[in-house]
Amino acid sequence: MSRLYLAADDAAAVSLSGSHLTIVIVVAAVALLALAVAGGLVREVLAAPQGTQRMQDISRAVQEGAAAYLTRQFRTLAVFVVLIPFLLYLLPAESTSVAIGRSVFFVIGAVFSALTGFIGMWLAVRGNVRVAAAARESGEKIAMRIAFRTGGVAGMFTVGLGLLGAAIVVFIYKGNAPSVLEGFGFGAALLAMFMRVGGGIFTKAADVGADLVGKVEQGIPEDDPRNAATIADNVGDNVGDCAGMAADLFESYAVMLVASLILGKAAFGTEGLVFPLIVPMIGVLTAIIGIFATAPRTGDRNGMAAINRGFFISAAISAVLVAVAAFAYLPSSFAGLTDVSDGIAAIDSDPRLIAIGAVLIGLVLASAIQVLTGYFTETNRRPVRDIGESSLTGPATVILSGIAVGLESAVYSALLIGGAVYGAFLLGFGNVTVALFAVALAGTGLLTTVGVIVSMDTFGPVSDNAQGIAEMSGDVEGEGARILTSLDAVGNTTKAITKGIAIATAVLAATALFGSFRTAVEFELANASAGVKEALGSFSSFSLSVDSPNVLVGLIIGAAVVFLFSGLAISAVGRAAGRVVFEVREQFRTKPGIMAGTELPDYGRVVDICTRDSLRELATPGLLAVLTPIAVGFALGYAPLGAYLAGAIACGTLMAVFLANSGGAWDNAKKLVEDGHHGGKGSPAHEATIIGDTVGDPFKDTAGPAINPLIKVMNLVALLIAPAVVTYADNGVLRIGVTVVAVGVVVAAVVISKRRSNSIAPANGDTTEQVETEKVSS
Amino acid sequence: MSRLYLAADDAAAVSLSGSHLTIVIVVAAVALLALAVAGGLVREVLAAPQGTQRMQDISRAVQEGAAAYLTRQFRTLAVFVVLIPFLLYLLPAESTSVAIGRSVFFVIGAVFSALTGFIGMWLAVRGNVRVAAAARESGEKIAMRIAFRTGGVAGMFTVGLGLLGAAIVVFIYKGNAPSVLEGFGFGAALLAMFMRVGGGIFTKAADVGADLVGKVEQGIPEDDPRNAATIADNVGDNVGDCAGMAADLFESYAVMLVASLILGKAAFGTEGLVFPLIVPMIGVLTAIIGIFATAPRTGDRNGMAAINRGFFISAAISAVLVAVAAFAYLPSSFAGLTDVSDGIAAIDSDPRLIAIGAVLIGLVLASAIQVLTGYFTETNRRPVRDIGESSLTGPATVILSGIAVGLESAVYSALLIGGAVYGAFLLGFGNVTVALFAVALAGTGLLTTVGVIVSMDTFGPVSDNAQGIAEMSGDVEGEGARILTSLDAVGNTTKAITKGIAIATAVLAATALFGSFRTAVEFELANASAGVKEALGSFSSFSLSVDSPNVLVGLIIGAAVVFLFSGLAISAVGRAAGRVVFEVREQFRTKPGIMAGTELPDYGRVVDICTRDSLRELATPGLLAVLTPIAVGFALGYAPLGAYLAGAIACGTLMAVFLANSGGAWDNAKKLVEDGHHGGKGSPAHEATIIGDTVGDPFKDTAGPAINPLIKVMNLVALLIAPAVVTYADNGVLRIGVTVVAVGVVVAAVVISKRRSNSIAPANGDTTEQVETEKVSS
Repeated sequence: MSRLYLAADDAAAVSLSGSHLTIVIVVAAVALLALAVAGGLVREVLAAPQGTQRMQDISRAVQEGAAAYLTRQFRTLAVFVVLIPFLLYLLPAESTSVAIGRSVFFVIGAVFSALTGFIGMWLAVRGNVRVAAAARESGEKIAMRIAFRTGGVAGMFTVGLGLLGAAIVVFIYKGNAPSVLEGFGFGAALLAMFMRVGGGIFTKAADVGADLVGKVEQGIPEDDPRNAATIADNVGDNVGDCAGMAADLFESYAVMLVASLILGKAAFGTEGLVFPLIVPMIGVLTAIIGIFATAPRTGDRNGMAAINRGFFISAAISAVLVAVAAFAYLPSSFAGLTDVSDGIAAIDSDPRLIAIGAVLIGLVLASAIQVLTGYFTETNRRPVRDIGESSLTGPATVILSGIAVGLESAVYSALLIGGAVYGAFLLGFGNVTVALFAVALAGTGLLTTVGVIVSMDTFGPVSDNAQGIAEMSGDVEGEGARILTSLDAVGNTTKAITKGIAIATAVLAATALFGSFRTAVEFELANASAGVKEALGSFSSFSLSVDSPNVLVGLIIGAAVVFLFSGLAISAVGRAAGRVVFEVREQFRTKPGIMAGTELPDYGRVVDICTRDSLRELATPGLLAVLTPIAVGFALGYAPLGAYLAGAIACGTLMAVFLANSGGAWDNAKKLVEDGHHGGKGSPAHEATIIGDTVGDPFKDTAGPAINPLIKVMNLVALLIAPAVVTYADNGVLRIGVTVVAVGVVVAAVVISKRRSNSIAPANGDTTEQVETEKVSS
Repeated sequence: MSRLYLAADDAAAVSLSGSHLTIVIVVAAVALLALAVAGGLVREVLAAPQGTQRMQDISRAVQEGAAAYLTRQFRTLAVFVVLIPFLLYLLPAESTSVAIGRSVFFVIGAVFSALTGFIGMWLAVRGNVRVAAAARESGEKIAMRIAFRTGGVAGMFTVGLGLLGAAIVVFIYKGNAPSVLEGFGFGAALLAMFMRVGGGIFTKAADVGADLVGKVEQGIPEDDPRNAATIADNVGDNVGDCAGMAADLFESYAVMLVASLILGKAAFGTEGLVFPLIVPMIGVLTAIIGIFATAPRTGDRNGMAAINRGFFISAAISAVLVAVAAFAYLPSSFAGLTDVSDGIAAIDSDPRLIAIGAVLIGLVLASAIQVLTGYFTETNRRPVRDIGESSLTGPATVILSGIAVGLESAVYSALLIGGAVYGAFLLGFGNVTVALFAVALAGTGLLTTVGVIVSMDTFGPVSDNAQGIAEMSGDVEGEGARILTSLDAVGNTTKAITKGIAIATAVLAATALFGSFRTAVEFELANASAGVKEALGSFSSFSLSVDSPNVLVGLIIGAAVVFLFSGLAISAVGRAAGRVVFEVREQFRTKPGIMAGTELPDYGRVVDICTRDSLRELATPGLLAVLTPIAVGFALGYAPLGAYLAGAIACGTLMAVFLANSGGAWDNAKKLVEDGHHGGKGSPAHEATIIGDTVGDPFKDTAGPAINPLIKVMNLVALLIAPAVVTYADNGVLRIGVTVVAVGVVVAAVVISKRRSNSIAPANGDTTEQVETEKVSS
C-alpha cells in the first residue's frame, strides 16, 4: 500500500542527510538536555525542607489520593492504548513499516502524554508542602522559587518529550515522518483529552461538593479539616489543573509539531521537515533561561512581575535566535529549497522572511492573549469590577454580567487568533500550501513559550495546594499565610493565561491540519475508481464549499458537538458533586464528633467517589469526540466532514474562551468582594459572588479547557479516516454499517449517562420527591 | 445595468401569463381574505365586555405605554427606512426599474413588518382586559377563545401581508421578481430585528428590574400595584413578546418566500415562481380553519390540548392540499417545466414528488420541534424536574443544570434542523439548484403553520397581561384567577415552541439564500475583469472551501458575531434593568405612602426609562448585524463572507435554542417549585429557582429570539453586497475605505455602549465604590 502524500513527490526519496541529519540529532540532544534540567530541578525541589509533621501528613494524604487516581485512570485508559493501535494499523498507509510505526508511535505519544502529566503531578504533590514550609520559614522569594521550579519540571518534560518524539520520528522515517507523526499526535491528544476531562470532573466535583456542604450548609471555611471533601479538593487541583494541563499542553506541543512537519515537507521540502524542529529547540533553550530568570526582585509589584519577566525575556531571545537560525539554515529563494515541487520552486519570495514573519506572529499572539486575558480576568480591571458591582443586586445579575463578559471576551480572543491566522495566510502570497505552513510556523512560534507557560501554569495548583496545606494544618500563620495567599492569586492569573494560549494553539494546529486533510483527500480523489467518482458527484474534485446544504449540515453538526460536549461535561460535574455532597452530609450525620473536632472525617471515601465517578463520566464525552467525526465522514462524506471540523474549530474557540474567562472573572469578582468591597466577606454581595464562582468552576476547569484537546482529537481522527471515507464512498453497506455502529455507541453512551440523572441532588433519598413530581400536571 | 440572474436565462423573457398569472391573482385574493378575517376577529374581540373600571384603567395605562413606545421606536427607525433605500439603489441591479422596485419594496417590507407588529400589539393590549373580564364573568372557554382570537389577528396579518407583498412583486416584476424581493425581505428583516432587540430589552429591563426591587428587596408579589415598574412590565410583554415576535415571524415568512421564489425560478422555471406562492396560500386557508377550530372541549386535559388540535388539524389539511396542488399544477417531469435551463430539463425525476416531499419535511420538522421543545421546557418532563431538584443544593446548581439542559437541547434541535436540510438536499438527487429549492420548499412547508403559530404565540402575552391586570386590580378572584393562571402556563409553552419554529425557519431560509449568494457571485465572476481575476487568485472560480485559512477566518468571525450580539443584548438588559431598579428604589424612598398603599407610584417614569434605554441600546447590536458582513466582504473577500454566513448560521442556531430553552426550563422549574415541590413558595429552593428564572429572562426573551432576524439580516446584506464585493476586488482603496468606515462605526458603537457601564448597579451613588475598587492591587 503506497498511498498518502506520494501525490506531490516520492517520499522515500526525500534526502535527509549531512547537515539536515546533524541538526535533527542536535535537536534530539537538546530535548534530552531539557529532561536533564528537569532532573536537576526535581533534586532541588526535593531537597527543600518539608515543614511540620502535620503538614507532611496532609501532603502525604494528597499524594496518595492523586497517585491512586492516576493509577486507576491509566488502567482504565489502557484499553484504548491497546485497542486503537490495531485499528490504526488497518487504515491506509504508505507502507507496512509506516503503518507499524504509526501504531507504535500512537502508543509512545499516549505514554509520553501520560508521563508528562504524571511527572508534573508527582512533583507538584511534593512541592506543595515544601512551598508551604518555605513560606513559613524562609520568606516569599524562596517559596516562589520552589513553586516555579516545581512547575519548571512539568515544563521541561512537556517540551523535552515532545521534541524528542518528533525528532526520533523524523530521524527514522524521514519523508514518511508525517504519517507516523499523525499516530504520535493522536496518541498524545487522545490521552490528554481523557486526562483533561477526567481530571476536570474530579477536581470540580470535589471543589463544588466541598463548597456546597462546607461553606454554604455548615458555614465552615474552605480547606477546613472537618470537611471530608478537603483532601479530595486538593487532590483534584493536582489531577485536574496539574496533570491534566501538563498532558494537554504536551499534546498541543506534539500536535503542533505534527502539523508543521506535515506541511513543512509540502511547502519547504527537506528544510521544511527540519526547520519546525529548530524553532521549538530554540524554545527549549530559552525556556531554560526563562525558568532560571524567574526570580522575584526587590521592587516588583507582585509575583506576577517576576513571572512576566521570565516569559518576556525568553520570548524576546526566541525571536532573535529564530531569525538567526532562519538566515543560517534556510536558502534565500524557494528554488534553493531541497526536494520541492516545481510549483513551490517557482514562488518568487524569500522563505527566510516568511518563516521569521510567521514565528513572530506566533510570539505576538502569545503576548496579546496574555494581555487580553489579563484585562478580562484581573481584579483591578473594569470587567471584574463591573461583575463585582453587580453583586449588589444579587446572584442573578452576577451570573448575567459574568456571562456577558465571557461572551464578549471570547469574541476578542477569536478575532486575535483569527487575525494571526489571516496574517500568516497573507505570508503565503496566494499559495495555499505555503500559507498553511506559515500558519503552522506561527503555531511553533507560539509554542516556543510553552516551557515557561507550563511552569507558570503548574505554579497555580502548587500554590493553591500549599495554601490548603497551610490552612488545614494550622501551622502557617502571619507573614507565611500572607505570602501563600499572594502566591495563590498569582496562580489564578497564570492559569487563565495558559488556557488562552492553549486554545490559540488548538486553532492554529487545527487550521494547519486542514492542509493535511486536503492532501489526503486529494490523493484519494485522484486515484478513485469510476464508481467512487460517480458516488461523489460534484464532490469528485476537492471542495469543502459551505454553500452546498450537505456541507453546511456537517458544519452545524461540528458546532453542535462542542455544545453537547460542554453540556455533558458540566452536567457530569453536577452529578459527581451531588454524590460528594451526599457523602459529606452523611459523614457529618453519622460522626457527630467531626464538627466538634474530636473525630476525623473519612477523607478516603470522598477521594474514592470522585475517582470512580470521574472515570465513569469521561467515557461519554470521549466517545463523542472520537466517534462523531467517523459517523459524519462515513454517513455524509468527506466534504461535510471537513466542514464539521471547521464548525468545531470556530465554535470551540469561542466556547472555550467564553467558559474560561467567565469562570476566571467570577473567581476574581469573589476575591474582590473578599478584599473588602461591596460589604466584604459574609455580606450578601459575597454570597452572590460565591454563587458566581461555583457556576464558573466547571466552566473554567472542566468544560472549557477540555475543548482544546477535543478539537485536536477530532481533527486527527478525521485526518486518519479521510482516505477510507473517500475510498469507500460507493460502498453503501460499509458506510451505513460504520455509521450505525458509531452513532449507536454515542447515543447509548449519552442515554446511559442521562440515566445517572442530570440532577446534582443525591440519587437516593429523593424517591418521594420523584413521585410527587410525576404528578405535576402538564 | 443588466447584471444579476441573467446568467442562467433571460429574466425579462420569463413568461408569466395565462394560468400562471391567474394563480398569482388568486394568491393575492386569498391574502386579502386573510386581512378581512383579521378585521372580523378584531370586531369580535372588541365587542367583548371589558370588566371593572379599575381593570380598564390599568389596561389603558398599558395601552398608552405600549403605543408611546412603538411610536418613539418607529420615529427612531424612520431614519433607516429613509436612508437605506438610497444606498440600496446604488447597488447593482438588472435594470433601473428593478433598482427602484427594490428600494420601494424595501420600504414596503419594513412598513408591513412594523404594521404586523403594531396591529398585533394594538389588539393585544385591548384583548388582555377582555380576557381578564371573561375569566371573571364567563368562564374558561370564552376567556381562552378571546385570547386565541386576539392572537389570530396577528397571525392573519403576518400571513396576509407577507403573501400579498410577494404576490404583488411577482405580478409586477415577473422574472425580475427575485431582485425586488431581496429588498422586500431585507426591509422586513431589518425592522423585525430592531423591534425584536428593542422590545426584548424593554420587556426584560422592566421585568428584571421589577423583580429585583419588588420580589427580592421589598418582598411584595409580582404585579403588585405598589411597584412602580409593574405597568412597564406589562407594557414590555406587549412590545417584546407580542409586537416583536409578530414582526419577527412576518419577517421569517417574507424572507422564506423571497428565498423560495429566487431558487424556485432557477430550479423549476416559471412554475417555481408560482408554486412557492401556492403553498403558503394553502397555509392561509388552513390557518383560518385552525384558528376557528381552536376551541376547548370537555375532556381536554388543559388549554394546550385545544391549541394542539388546531395546529395539527391545519397541518394535516395543509399536507393533503399541497399534494393535490402539486399534482394539479406541476408537470410530471422536469422537461415539462416552463423556461428552465437544459441542465434542469434533463433531470430524470418527478418534480411533483420532490415538491411534496420537501413540503412534508417542513411540516414534520415543525411538529418535531414542537415535541422536542415541549420535552425540554414542560414542567412534567425530566429536564425541568432535574433542574427543580437541583434547587435543593442552591442557585449555583440551578444555573449549572439549566445551562447543561440548554446546551444539550440546542444540539438536538440543531440535529433535527440539520436532518431536515439534509433530507431536502437528498431530494435534489445531486443537483444543487434543485436541492436548494427543496430546502426552500421545506421552509414554506414549515411556514404553512405560521398563521396558527403566531396566534399561539400572541396568546402568551395576552394571557400574561390578563393575569397582571387581574392581580393589579384585585377584581378577579377564585375561579377566574385560576383560569388566568392556567392560561398563563399554556402561554409559556406556546412561546417556547414559537421560538423553536422561528429559528428553524431562519436556518432553512439562510441555507436557501446561500443559493442566491452563489448565483450572484458566479455571475460577477463570469463577467469579471482581468484585474479582478488576478486579485482573486484561486478564488476566481466560485469556492467557499473552508480549508483555506482566510475562509476559515471568515467562518470564525461569523460565529463570533453571534457571541458578541448575545453578550451585548444580555448586558444591555443588565444596564437598563439597573436604571429601573434605581428609579423604583428612589420612588419607594421619596414617596413613603406607596408602600402603605396611600400614594400611587409614578408608573410613567419607569415606562419612559425603559423606552429611552431600549431604543438607545438597540443601536449597537443593529449596527453590528448590518456592518460586520460589509466589513468582512470588503476586507477579506466573497469567500470569507460566504463562510461568515455559514459560521453565523451554525453558531446562531445553537445559541438561539440554547438561550431559549435554558430560559424556558428555568421559568418552568420555578413554576414547579411554586406548585409546592421542594418546599414550595418562600423556601430556599424557590429563591434558587427565582434566581435561575431571572438569569433566563434576557436569555429567552432578548438575546435568544433576536438571533433569528440577525441571521437573516446578515444573509440579506451579504446577498445585496455580493456583486460589489466581487466587482471591486481589485480596488484596494475602495475596499479599505469601506472596511475602515464599517469597522470604525461598529467599534465606536461598542465602545460607547461600554461607556454606559456593564454593571446592573445604578450609575450614580457608587463613586466611592469606584475609587475603592481602583485601589485593589493587581
